[in-house]
Amino acid sequence: MSQRGRFITLEGGEGVGKSTQVRRLAKALQARGIEVVTTREPGGTPGAEAIRDLLMTGAAGRWNAATETLLFAAARADHVARVIEPALAAGKWVICDRYLDSTRAYQGAAGGIDDADIVTVNRIGGAMLPDRTLLLDLPVEAGLTRAGARGASDRMGSRDDTFYDRVDAGFRAFAAAEPERFRTIDAAGSPDEVSTRLIAALSDLL
Amino acid sequence: MSQRGRFITLEGGEGVGKSTQVRRLAKALQARGIEVVTTREPGGTPGAEAIRDLLMTGAAGRWNAATETLLFAAARADHVARVIEPALAAGKWVICDRYLDSTRAYQGAAGGIDDADIVTVNRIGGAMLPDRTLLLDLPVEAGLTRAGARGASDRMGSRDDTFYDRVDAGFRAFAAAEPERFRTIDAAGSPDEVSTRLIAALSDLL
Repeated sequence: MSQRGRFITLEGGEGVGKSTQVRRLAKALQARGIEVVTTREPGGTPGAEAIRDLLMTGAAGRWNAATETLLFAAARADHVARVIEPALAAGKWVICDRYLDSTRAYQGAAGGIDDADIVTVNRIGGAMLPDRTLLLDLPVEAGLTRAGARGASDRMGSRDDTFYDRVDAGFRAFAAAEPERFRTIDAAGSPDEVSTRLIAALSDLL
Repeated sequence: MSQRGRFITLEGGEGVGKSTQVRRLAKALQARGIEVVTTREPGGTPGAEAIRDLLMTGAAGRWNAATETLLFAAARADHVARVIEPALAAGKWVICDRYLDSTRAYQGAAGGIDDADIVTVNRIGGAMLPDRTLLLDLPVEAGLTRAGARGASDRMGSRDDTFYDRVDAGFRAFAAAEPERFRTIDAAGSPDEVSTRLIAALSDLL
């Protein structure tokens, strides 16, 4: 029986470099002989990607925050049951670009849904907490500039600036409340520099 | 300020005549001068109908019961916020073909999701309880025969018979637990006979 794998999530606002760092982190872990599955939310399974389409397209007011919370939780339930949990059980590490804490930050801290309610809905959907959550930290304005330069403009990436300030404050509060699970990583500097910080923040798990 | 309208749901297994009776009940109430909105679940709004498409199409194993529960709750959150609550607030009566108790029966009693969890998820989504739930009662076998004759065969309507027995037992248990909200209506006989029973079961609200 193989040892259970580790579940690592990368979180943070727009343009902090999460998807780049997921790929780099996977390579660094594979170089250490670890089997790695990389995935993202919302999505990661055919069903969850179909739910992602509902969430990311259409008018800004297409869904209210409560409906969004439930759709994210539904996509997550499918993703956990069909990809994340089987991989962990098989001894693989899973690195996920956004997860539960994004729902807590976007629909909760910024969208007004009660944090305990979000956690409850996700627990009912079978979502476990990550072993480690790496919060990529960059000033909101710098991240939005990077995201804008990249042309990101889906429903989730086109809110006003006070919305992103609330998202940012939410992530910081979650990290402060769970120092064992979270590591806050300075996302400024070159991709190499940030990667080095991420690996260091996993050293106790390696 | 108009008096708040009444929220009536029709529940029951396959082929008990819910959609026919929703239409007939609306006419009977309109004949008494009541403004009525008829609707159905899953669905009732453009967003909820898009979620309905995800739920009702595809392979039988497309979603597990937890994911289904969250998708139904998401569709319901949209439906309540955009159709049901505004209509009730405007003094209209709302008659809905299936609602929360169908999720409790299909994903809960038959699908194995904890009933309290289903109620919690839906409360978080903003779903209120109906003022009256009319449970149309027919032997499971008779309903399935009627539904089969009509050609109903979506994902929800193509399970094995023990599944429908559990759905039926669930509905009966919910009605027994909330006698104020529920009325169990014999769905055998002509549409006229059933309509007369339904109206009688609303007499205290009229």
